[in-house]
Amino acid sequence: MRTGVNDRSDLPIALVIGGGGMGMSTARRLGQSHRIILASLTADKNPKREELLREDGIDATVTQCDITDPESVADLGRFVAERGQLRTLAHVAALSPATGDWRTVLTANLIGVTHIERMCLGLATQGTAAIFVSSLAAHRSDPPSDEIISVLDDPLAPDFFERLEALVPEQESVLAYRLSKFSVNRMCRRRASEWGARGARIVSMSPGLIATPMGAREFSGQSGELKRELLRSTPLQREGTMVETADAIEFLASERASFITGTDLLVDGGTLAAVR
Amino acid sequence: MRTGVNDRSDLPIALVIGGGGMGMSTARRLGQSHRIILASLTADKNPKREELLREDGIDATVTQCDITDPESVADLGRFVAERGQLRTLAHVAALSPATGDWRTVLTANLIGVTHIERMCLGLATQGTAAIFVSSLAAHRSDPPSDEIISVLDDPLAPDFFERLEALVPEQESVLAYRLSKFSVNRMCRRRASEWGARGARIVSMSPGLIATPMGAREFSGQSGELKRELLRSTPLQREGTMVETADAIEFLASERASFITGTDLLVDGGTLAAVR
Amino acid sequence: MRTGVNDRSDLPIALVIGGGGMGMSTARRLGQSHRIILASLTADKNPKREELLREDGIDATVTQCDITDPESVADLGRFVAERGQLRTLAHVAALSPATGDWRTVLTANLIGVTHIERMCLGLATQGTAAIFVSSLAAHRSDPPSDEIISVLDDPLAPDFFERLEALVPEQESVLAYRLSKFSVNRMCRRRASEWGARGARIVSMSPGLIATPMGAREFSGQSGELKRELLRSTPLQREGTMVETADAIEFLASERASFITGTDLLVDGGTLAAVR
Amino acid sequence: MRTGVNDRSDLPIALVIGGGGMGMSTARRLGQSHRIILASLTADKNPKREELLREDGIDATVTQCDITDPESVADLGRFVAERGQLRTLAHVAALSPATGDWRTVLTANLIGVTHIERMCLGLATQGTAAIFVSSLAAHRSDPPSDEIISVLDDPLAPDFFERLEALVPEQESVLAYRLSKFSVNRMCRRRASEWGARGARIVSMSPGLIATPMGAREFSGQSGELKRELLRSTPLQREGTMVETADAIEFLASERASFITGTDLLVDGGTLAAVR
Repeated sequence: MRTGVNDRSDLPIALVIGGGGMGMSTARRLGQSHRIILASLTADKNPKREELLREDGIDATVTQCDITDPESVADLGRFVAERGQLRTLAHVAALSPATGDWRTVLTANLIGVTHIERMCLGLATQGTAAIFVSSLAAHRSDPPSDEIISVLDDPLAPDFFERLEALVPEQESVLAYRLSKFSVNRMCRRRASEWGARGARIVSMSPGLIATPMGAREFSGQSGELKRELLRSTPLQREGTMVETADAIEFLASERASFITGTDLLVDGGTLAAVR
Repeated sequence: MRTGVNDRSDLPIALVIGGGGMGMSTARRLGQSHRIILASLTADKNPKREELLREDGIDATVTQCDITDPESVADLGRFVAERGQLRTLAHVAALSPATGDWRTVLTANLIGVTHIERMCLGLATQGTAAIFVSSLAAHRSDPPSDEIISVLDDPLAPDFFERLEALVPEQESVLAYRLSKFSVNRMCRRRASEWGARGARIVSMSPGLIATPMGAREFSGQSGELKRELLRSTPLQREGTMVETADAIEFLASERASFITGTDLLVDGGTLAAVR
Repeated sequence: MRTGVNDRSDLPIALVIGGGGMGMSTARRLGQSHRIILASLTADKNPKREELLREDGIDATVTQCDITDPESVADLGRFVAERGQLRTLAHVAALSPATGDWRTVLTANLIGVTHIERMCLGLATQGTAAIFVSSLAAHRSDPPSDEIISVLDDPLAPDFFERLEALVPEQESVLAYRLSKFSVNRMCRRRASEWGARGARIVSMSPGLIATPMGAREFSGQSGELKRELLRSTPLQREGTMVETADAIEFLASERASFITGTDLLVDGGTLAAVR
Repeated sequence: MRTGVNDRSDLPIALVIGGGGMGMSTARRLGQSHRIILASLTADKNPKREELLREDGIDATVTQCDITDPESVADLGRFVAERGQLRTLAHVAALSPATGDWRTVLTANLIGVTHIERMCLGLATQGTAAIFVSSLAAHRSDPPSDEIISVLDDPLAPDFFERLEALVPEQESVLAYRLSKFSVNRMCRRRASEWGARGARIVSMSPGLIATPMGAREFSGQSGELKRELLRSTPLQREGTMVETADAIEFLASERASFITGTDLLVDGGTLAAVR
C-alpha cells in the first residue's frame, strides 16, 4: 500500500482545462468529489500545480495539452480514458483580448474549445457533464449577423478564417473575444441533443466581473474606465470571487443540475441586467 | 419546553407562495434550512398542508393569502415580519392557461407576482434571495413589441388591462400565460438593482416539461400533441421532476449563488435549445 | 416515452427500511439523489406511501418486507438487485419499548437488522454505504457483561434467546431495546472490515430526543418524566427534528463521508454529554 | 470600490487555528462559505498563506497567535470581534509526538486548546459552531485513571504539571499526545452545556491515518512499522485525505449538523473498529 499520497480510485474523473487562477480554483473545488486531471499548455509549471493540488489532499494529475492542436487533444483523450470514466469536464482556459490578437484569440477560445468538446463527447456516458466557462461578453452586444453565425458554427472548417474575415473587416482581439464567447454559449445549446443522446449534459457559465489577478490588471489598463463603470452599475456593488465561479461550476457539474443542459448560467452580480 | 413540535427559531425564514404540488415540494426542500411560512389561497386545505410539512420534521406555518389583493399581501408581509428575518422568497403560485382566462391568468401571474415582489423587497436585507418560478414559455416565442413591453412593465397601473388590450387583440389564456412569464423574467432583471441596494438578490427559474399531476393532465388535453412533440425533442429524453426544480430553487436561494442575480436559470432538459 | 412519472433510471438506488415517520422523511431526503425502494411491513399502507413520495417528485417504489423473516429479506434482496445497483441502505425500522415485549423488540431490532445487514452486504460494491439508525439508548448505560455481549454478537444462532435469557433474568422491553441498540452500534464496528473489503461503508447514527409523533406520545406516557428531565438537561435546550436526522443520514450516505465507517454518529443535542 | 480583492463582508467569520497543511485545507474549505481569519504561530509564513488563500478567491486574513500565551489569545479574540460575528471555529493546530516533548505537547495540545475554547465561547452566539481536530489516538488506549482525568480536566490550574507528573511517571511525548487528545474530546463533551446556553455547538473530530506530508514522514520514522500495521488493518484499505477531513469539518460546522454537539466524529476508515 502506498502512503502519503491521495489515491482516490473510488472517485470519478474531472478533467479541468486551464492552469491559470480560475483553472486551479476549479480543480480544487471539483477535487472534493473527483480525481482531477488538469491539462495546461505551460508544461514547465505543471509539476508545481500538481504539487499544490496534492498538498490540499486532492488526487491530481497535471498534464500538458495544446487545445489548438488536434493531435494533442486526442492524446489527452487517451490519457483520460486510460485512467477511468469521465464524469465532469470543466473547460476554463481562455485568452483575454489583452493576451492575444484576432486569430490567436479565436483559435484558443473557439477552435480549441471545439476540439475539446468533440473529444469529450466521445468519452461521455450517462451522467457526464461538461461546463464551458464563457463570459458576460457573450451577452453584451447584439448577436452577429446570421451569415457570420453560420461561419462561427463550423470553426473546424479549413477555410474558417478566410470566410469569417471576408465578413468581419475590423479584426480586433476584443471582437474576437466577444465572437468566441458568443459562439461557445451557442455551441452548448446546439450540441445538447448530441450529449443528451448519451445521457450527458453540456452547459456554459458566463462570469461577469470577477476578482482575479488578470482582472485586476485590466482595471488599470486600456479598458479600465469601462470596467469601473460596469462595476459601478453592478447591482451587487462588488466584483465576484473565484469561490463564486467555483460554486456555479460545482452546481452545474453535480447531480443537482441533472435537468439543466443546453443553456447558460450567468454569474455576474446583475451587471448585464443593469446595463442591457 | 414544548415537545413534539419542530421549533426551529434558530433558522431564518423562507416564504413560499403557492400550496400546490410544486409549492409543497419547494417548502419541503427549503424546510431543510429554513423555518417555512407557506401562503396559499385555498384556506381550507392549509391545515392539512401544515400537518404534512410538520410530519416531515419541518417548522412550518401555513397561512392564507390572495396575492391578487394588495391588502392580503400587506397582511402577509406583517405576518412574516413578526416572525423574524426573511432570508428566502420562493414564489411558485401560478395559473396555467387551462385554469384561467386572459385576465385571470395575467392577474395571478403578473399582477399578483408584482405585489409579492414589492412587499418582499420591503423585508429584504443583506443575504435575502427571491426566486420566482417562471416557465419555458417565457422563452419560446419572440418577445412582444416594445409598446406591449412598456405596458407589461407597469402591471399595477390602474389602466393596465385597458392599455394592454388595446394592443393585443387575441385575448387568450395561452398568450396571457406567455406574456406573464415573459414579464416575470423581465421583472427579475429590471429589479436587480433595487434588490442589490439592500444586498439582496432576485432571480427567475424557468422549468420546462416537469412531471407533475397538472402536467400529466395536459398531455391528454388540447395541447397534448404539442407537449408530446416537445418531449420527443428534449435532449435528455424525459420530463424533469419536482426534485430537480427544488434542486434549482435551493441552489439559487443558497449562498452558493451569492453572485447570481437579475437573471434566469432554465431547467428544461435542453428543450428550448432543441426547438428554438 | 412515459409521462407524468418520475423516472430516474439515471440515479443509483437507496433502500430504506421502515415506513413510519422517520422512514418517510429519510426516503424523501435520499430521494433527492437516489431512486428509492422503501420496504415496510404494513403492506396496506404502502400504496399511499408510494403516492406521497411520487407527489414530491421522487422515483419511489414501496414494497412489503418482514425483516424478521429470512425468506422475505431474501426476496427484497432480489427485488433490489433486479432494479439496479444499491448505493445506499438506510435502516430506520425499529420497535420502541412501548410497542413490543422483550422477544419482539429483540427480534425486530437485532435479528431483523442482522438479516438486512447480511443481505445488503451481498449487494454492496465500491461506494455503497449502509446507515443503521440506532438510539441514544445504545450509549446511556454501562455496556453489558462480556458473556452477554458474546451472545448478542450472534443473534442468528438457533439458541440465541435461550442463551441470552439464561444470562438476563429481567426480560423487559426497555432492556431489550437498549441491548438491541447497543448491539447495532457494535455490529457496525465489527462488520466494517467485511464491508471495507468491497469498498463499502457501514455506520450507525444514534438520535437522541427527536420530535416525532411517537416521541410526543412518550412524553405523556410512563417514561414521560424521565424524558422531560433528559430534555431539560439537553445542552441545545430543545428536541431535534426529523430534518436533522435526515441531515445526518444524508451526510453519512454521501461521498463527503467516504472515510467514515465502523463508527457511530450521535445526533442528540448534547444530551448524552450532559447526563453521562 | 476596491477591485481585485475578494471582499466578502456578506459572509460570517470562520476562525481557523493552525497554518500547516490541514489548517490551510480547512481554511480553503470554510472559505467557500465564510470570511477566513487564520491564526498561526509562525508569523514569517503568514503573508504567503494569505496570498495563497486570496489567489483561490477567498476573503482571508492571516494573523499571528501563540495559543499557549493567554495574552496572545485575548488579542486574537479582539481581532476577530472587531471584524464581525464568529460563526465557526476550526481548531487544527497541534504538535505531534515527534515535534515536542512531554510538556511542550501538553502545553500546545491541551493548555493552548483550552485558551482558545474559553476565548471563543465569549464570542459565541446563536449558531456558532466550534470544531476541535483531535485524533484517533484519543480512542486507542484505555482511558486514564479517574485521578489523572480530574487533573486533565483543569489544565489552566497553576499547579497542573506538578499534579499530573506526580501521577504519571513516564513523561513521554507519545503519552502526552494521547492524554491531550483524550482530554480535547472530553472537553467537547463537558463544555457542551456552556456552549448550548448560547445556542452554540462544540464538537471534536478525530482523524485516523491521513495522507499528509507530516504523516508520510512518520511512516519512515520510529513508529513506521506500527503505522503500516494500522494501515493494513484499516477496513477501507487506504489512508484518508485532507479533502475528507475538510468534508467532516465542513459538515460539523454547517447547519446540517445543528443537533450535533458534545460528541466526537471519528474519520478513520474504520481503523479503530478493526484494532480495538
